[in-house]
Amino acid sequence: MNSISLDDFKNEFDKHIICFFEEIQIEENIKEALSYSVKNGGKRLRPWFIYNFGKSEDISSENLINAGIAVEILHSSSLIHDDLPALDDANFRRGVLTNHLRFGEYKAILAGDYGFTLPLKIIMDLKDIELENKLVALRYFIEDTLKMFEGEMRDLIYEKDNLEVETSEIINMYANKTGAIFGLSFSLPFFLAGEYKLGEKMHEIGIDFGISFQIFDDLKDLLKSEKELGKDTHKDVNKKTLLNKMSSKEVKIVADNYYSRVIENLLTLNYSDMVRNLIEIRNIVESR
Amino acid sequence: MNSISLDDFKNEFDKHIICFFEEIQIEENIKEALSYSVKNGGKRLRPWFIYNFGKSEDISSENLINAGIAVEILHSSSLIHDDLPALDDANFRRGVLTNHLRFGEYKAILAGDYGFTLPLKIIMDLKDIELENKLVALRYFIEDTLKMFEGEMRDLIYEKDNLEVETSEIINMYANKTGAIFGLSFSLPFFLAGEYKLGEKMHEIGIDFGISFQIFDDLKDLLKSEKELGKDTHKDVNKKTLLNKMSSKEVKIVADNYYSRVIENLLTLNYSDMVRNLIEIRNIVESR
Repeated sequence: MNSISLDDFKNEFDKHIICFFEEIQIEENIKEALSYSVKNGGKRLRPWFIYNFGKSEDISSENLINAGIAVEILHSSSLIHDDLPALDDANFRRGVLTNHLRFGEYKAILAGDYGFTLPLKIIMDLKDIELENKLVALRYFIEDTLKMFEGEMRDLIYEKDNLEVETSEIINMYANKTGAIFGLSFSLPFFLAGEYKLGEKMHEIGIDFGISFQIFDDLKDLLKSEKELGKDTHKDVNKKTLLNKMSSKEVKIVADNYYSRVIENLLTLNYSDMVRNLIEIRNIVESR
Repeated sequence: MNSISLDDFKNEFDKHIICFFEEIQIEENIKEALSYSVKNGGKRLRPWFIYNFGKSEDISSENLINAGIAVEILHSSSLIHDDLPALDDANFRRGVLTNHLRFGEYKAILAGDYGFTLPLKIIMDLKDIELENKLVALRYFIEDTLKMFEGEMRDLIYEKDNLEVETSEIINMYANKTGAIFGLSFSLPFFLAGEYKLGEKMHEIGIDFGISFQIFDDLKDLLKSEKELGKDTHKDVNKKTLLNKMSSKEVKIVADNYYSRVIENLLTLNYSDMVRNLIEIRNIVESR
């Protein structure tokens, strides 16, 4: 079946996010702070992968959208904590004030805390999913969330302790910090459908995508202005990225290789429609 | 069957905590910071409830200890974040430096983040539990964690915005902030054993226990020295507690009433052995 384009999906998905926060009954300050960051989302790449891969399986649109909301809340919560003064100390995110500057630090911390656990409740509440499949999906969700925190810790340690790190350690950090949640997004629909073997394969492909995505992100930080990106840039000067190890030309080749491997693997699995999409959104991944 | 005393349990349990952190494979900085707070635990009341109530059901000691470790990690993580400069800004906890003063703020934030999700992996990994029972246990674990964050947010809002609050709002905040995790500890073994109805009843009783526990805690903050408690005291002057609404004598009566209700309800359910224990540990709850 045909997949939906990223732009069309984002339009639809953003409406669902608004409805979700209108309907959910949670403490008002948490809701206000958390929804501020989730609604002002980016490209909605992660839920788009869930939706498109999920449409090839027998899972309802409602479940796919809700799984997408879960992953997007997790992702936004990680950004809320990343931006805190004690971590990246960022002022702007997606063109607006970071969460702690808008609501105060204690609300940003608690909104993030809440937003790391809420996604699991959303997955728990999905309808008409077999018990075992739901448990497997929850297991990956939990484990990938933990990997994300581990990657984030490595990233900060490398930077703040100014450590000498190997290329392989940086790639490994990317695989956790960014790759784990893309791995989750590529695989979640297959776990929910009981396709565990395929899910595991897609999880690996998603991690590769996340690594290429993170490398392109580093290149953007180096080359683009704050106005273009809507967030603080050139803050990565002390971060340990591949740019500490090689030229930006070489770094781009590494990202290209990961991106190509994703495409090859998806072709092998006959996702030719998603491959077309990935080729089409390549410029978005690279430059926005 | 006979239950184990709190002191005997704590001795055993603390050894299991040490083994747990020796064996678990996680990022070393997260492990160091998180285990610092979990190992330097308090009375181990929450896992003691899980263990004693669980022994009346057909659940292995190993599973009960692991469920106790999960709840204790959750509890310790909430203290790590509570103590942060943006929240309670505390210097000491259980007689030692708070996590952020010992390891730095970013490590404390990430160790707490990790410690909110890790317990769910521990529950997920319990052996020989029926799928459906595991899902129900995970559901309560997730929902009670969310309630804890909501209670924490209300507590901070009341204090920082210096709001006029009703007695019922304070009790409701206690029920979330402290009651939810005691509700979880009282009920978890029953959910794991498939005794859902009894589990729900125990969940309510546990919340009552948590409310009385929190009120005694407020009284301690007022009456005890830092040396006696091993943490910063008299920091609650701006907090909204029942002491804003009534005399300490009246407050003690409210706590007594909740404690008595717990005992009555446990007697109705024939937990006479646990009732003896609760009468015995009453002075520990009240004064340590």
